[in-house]
Amino acid sequence: MESQQSSGAAGEGPIELTFITGNKKKLEEFLSIMEGTELATHYKVTNKEVNLDELQGDAEFIAKRKVKEAAKHVSTPAITEDVSLCFNALKGLPGPYIKCFLDKLGRQGLHNLLAAYEDKTAYAQCIYAYCESPDSEPQLFVGKCEGTIVAPRGENMFGWDPIFQPKGYDTTFAEMDLEEKNKISHRGKALEQFKAFLEAKANKRVKSE
Amino acid sequence: MESQQSSGAAGEGPIELTFITGNKKKLEEFLSIMEGTELATHYKVTNKEVNLDELQGDAEFIAKRKVKEAAKHVSTPAITEDVSLCFNALKGLPGPYIKCFLDKLGRQGLHNLLAAYEDKTAYAQCIYAYCESPDSEPQLFVGKCEGTIVAPRGENMFGWDPIFQPKGYDTTFAEMDLEEKNKISHRGKALEQFKAFLEAKANKRVKSE
Repeated sequence: MESQQSSGAAGEGPIELTFITGNKKKLEEFLSIMEGTELATHYKVTNKEVNLDELQGDAEFIAKRKVKEAAKHVSTPAITEDVSLCFNALKGLPGPYIKCFLDKLGRQGLHNLLAAYEDKTAYAQCIYAYCESPDSEPQLFVGKCEGTIVAPRGENMFGWDPIFQPKGYDTTFAEMDLEEKNKISHRGKALEQFKAFLEAKANKRVKSE
Repeated sequence: MESQQSSGAAGEGPIELTFITGNKKKLEEFLSIMEGTELATHYKVTNKEVNLDELQGDAEFIAKRKVKEAAKHVSTPAITEDVSLCFNALKGLPGPYIKCFLDKLGRQGLHNLLAAYEDKTAYAQCIYAYCESPDSEPQLFVGKCEGTIVAPRGENMFGWDPIFQPKGYDTTFAEMDLEEKNKISHRGKALEQFKAFLEAKANKRVKSE
């Protein structure tokens, strides 16, 4: 398989990976976990925009199916990233449907969904998914950040950040310094796990040389 | 194509159709539109359970993709049926995600989603989709029923019937006689359209004999 040729053998230059996104910012964010580390010498990560179906179901199910489908469209291992916003009073909903709900209802509309409930707690979840080849079993790296849904405060480019106040803070994601946010965010935590996976993979490769 | 062989030629017995469902009640309901009419001599409809992906997106998009996928699994034209429950204050949501929302939140939980809004109006939508073969363009038959979301009243086997009160009535779907409900329901209206389509198709076939 092409993907195995380009990523498997030792001593043949960096391992190539493709991050499935049309969003250069997401690629940059991903690359930042390698900056100034040895990982940068072991991996070459590029991005590719692929129009993939969004399935209904649990976030883990959706992520696995998506990255497996993505792996068919590239000649290297594929990486995808998905975010859910889960309201505890709504048993985890809107969850993986958060993009559609945000688009249709806006931030205040999301907050309104909880009007009937005292419990405004929620968690944000990010799943990075990795699939070596279309025949491989996908691996998931799940990061969670607990918090509370509040009336919108602050302004940044990220959709629902103004209504999410992480646990232990009195600021919303939108009011936080980006660096501080990345340290505690769902995405930051998922990336940390992914980084550990990449380090282990690189070490294994070095040892086999 | 196999599906065209079994459904296209005139004078070769009834046209075979497959309704994609594991639910015999849904098949019976579908067959009831033919009962006592000439249609019963023109069509033979059976059911088949196929495990199909549920996509995210607009109801029409989901229905088209699903029936096209379904057509790959049968040797006759395929029929699928999907229902949405659309809250006007929520810009049509939960819409096609209603099954998941009902499962997780229950009837009272669905009603609670509108706690922040004066506007409790909603519409139920049923789409019957028909696809001649995997290469054909699907056809949709859309039935809508307007109404209001109320606190649960009445009890029947259909999921959200106790919280849907159709416009012009003071009873919920769950409190109505089934026959009366079918006359005005989203499903009844979609079936009416489908019936007209089947009649036109049968007439065309008779003329070509």
